[in-house]
Amino acid sequence: MTKRITLDDIAAAAHVSKATVSKALNDTGQLSAHTRRLILKTADELGYVKTANVQTPRCKTGLIGLVTSDLEGRFSNPALIGAENTLGSTNHAVLLTNSRGDPKLERAHIDQLAARRVDGLLMLGGETDSRPPLKPNTALGIPIVYAYAPSNNPEDCSVTCDNVAAGAMAIDHLLLRGRRHIAIVSGPEHYTATKDRLAGARKALKQSGLQLAAPVCYGNWHESWGRTAAQLLLSKGVRIDGIYCLNDMLARGVIETLLAQGIRVPEDIAVIGHDNWQVTATECRVPITSFDNNLQEIGRRAARHLLDAINGNPHHGTTYIGCSLIVRKSTTA
Amino acid sequence: MTKRITLDDIAAAAHVSKATVSKALNDTGQLSAHTRRLILKTADELGYVKTANVQTPRCKTGLIGLVTSDLEGRFSNPALIGAENTLGSTNHAVLLTNSRGDPKLERAHIDQLAARRVDGLLMLGGETDSRPPLKPNTALGIPIVYAYAPSNNPEDCSVTCDNVAAGAMAIDHLLLRGRRHIAIVSGPEHYTATKDRLAGARKALKQSGLQLAAPVCYGNWHESWGRTAAQLLLSKGVRIDGIYCLNDMLARGVIETLLAQGIRVPEDIAVIGHDNWQVTATECRVPITSFDNNLQEIGRRAARHLLDAINGNPHHGTTYIGCSLIVRKSTTA
Repeated sequence: MTKRITLDDIAAAAHVSKATVSKALNDTGQLSAHTRRLILKTADELGYVKTANVQTPRCKTGLIGLVTSDLEGRFSNPALIGAENTLGSTNHAVLLTNSRGDPKLERAHIDQLAARRVDGLLMLGGETDSRPPLKPNTALGIPIVYAYAPSNNPEDCSVTCDNVAAGAMAIDHLLLRGRRHIAIVSGPEHYTATKDRLAGARKALKQSGLQLAAPVCYGNWHESWGRTAAQLLLSKGVRIDGIYCLNDMLARGVIETLLAQGIRVPEDIAVIGHDNWQVTATECRVPITSFDNNLQEIGRRAARHLLDAINGNPHHGTTYIGCSLIVRKSTTA
Repeated sequence: MTKRITLDDIAAAAHVSKATVSKALNDTGQLSAHTRRLILKTADELGYVKTANVQTPRCKTGLIGLVTSDLEGRFSNPALIGAENTLGSTNHAVLLTNSRGDPKLERAHIDQLAARRVDGLLMLGGETDSRPPLKPNTALGIPIVYAYAPSNNPEDCSVTCDNVAAGAMAIDHLLLRGRRHIAIVSGPEHYTATKDRLAGARKALKQSGLQLAAPVCYGNWHESWGRTAAQLLLSKGVRIDGIYCLNDMLARGVIETLLAQGIRVPEDIAVIGHDNWQVTATECRVPITSFDNNLQEIGRRAARHLLDAINGNPHHGTTYIGCSLIVRKSTTA
């Protein structure tokens, strides 16, 4: 058995007092960020393990802390289902907390989850924009996987969806349907989902030697913007035979405006959406071809990665789960 | 200290063998429902406490078991948020399980939650139809509250929404807007929500000496049925100036058909929905007046009732939370 590392060992190695080490490890008192970081790094390098963990080495609780950023979000919920399915079927119990996008609340939740000795933490975001990783002194060495919203540290284990590939597939699908004059109706420009889908779309167009029929119509994610954007596109007088909408509500708004103007969908203009949101995609008068983000699979994969990490086989880097094209009438005459 | 009740005491009082008592208490072996019930009742009257509980009297874990019947449901999710908010703010941790409407899985989850010594169980349903209560030998004396789907045992503590009052408010709102020729578009007849809303609506009409302008249009809960039902109502040739739709998707379908036929909403026909589902109620070309079920409040109230029960002050019976009327353009010219 190897010797247990003490606060004295860390103090000696880091050239600080034992009290300073204690402050850093327990995140108390006044310390510069530099000193705190140095001590945590030293403790880590020496293989220091907190007493609480030493008392019950390898004693797993079977508890997984699941921290959602947004329980109301229609994106985090299916991923939550996937994670619960996987963890439940391996007799792990899920401790659910909702941080409501508040970093302080997230920190408080994680402290509580750590106090309950969870075996792992699954951080579930509400959108694909990346997020800052948890600080090492927050998570106390507990394995972490980030789902949907990946960590912006590429060394962390994250699972999210492949929006770049989806953007390319959308264009390829329209090209296969014989469309050559393609416009794009988008939500706000700053979302990672927006940027990634557009990057994929532009790449696919370039590979076919084509350009967009009109500049990308940036707006919000609401149906009313879809209605307005379609009118803007029609008013330009340019030829359009396919419209890629970056979500289903936009697609529905676009389709309603086209139909109201006597334009046939998909015969005159094919329309494709994203998110495969049943209520919008299937209830529209012309059911909408769309991409399913496979959110449950993202939740399942994240949970499996977390179980692997708990069992000593951590994954690193971001895993991208492909979106599935669900073909409906809006692109098939 | 009072004498601990043993299996022998129960056997003597119930005039059965000790083995039979054991079978009943552990839910094993072959026993008639009558005998099992008699023994559980006797054990309860004598104040029998299972050994597992005797070992740690009053030792609370701060864990609450939350059993959802349907995590995908858009009704259970807001109630889950309300419950999590309340329990989280009192330092209770929520163990989340999803029974997916499967009684066997529900039973397995509850066994696991009991093994983790949860202080209470919150049973969260996906619709307002009542459900059978948990068997006493399943829950082992753990306090239980049923949310959204109430228990069909009126002695149990349940919290759900007041659909009868909502139905009456819908009619009163249309009457206040000067409407006298009211039709109703509904989902399937067998839902408790359907029956309750219609009972409230009929009562309000009767109080004003009015009748429905046409028989209730029963169908499904989809927008396409709203479109069809509106056409059916128009084809009858009866005068209609208000339509109460039992959800927002039906209301949206009705409104689309009316607009397509040149009928103005609300000037010619006012339309009211139910559920206040943002994406449908606000994205419709004519935003829809609707009822918010206050699901978060249902979750919060259920959680508070559960905390009361854990602290020795159980509630009995069903608490009805009122729905709130959200007035939008579909009823206000």
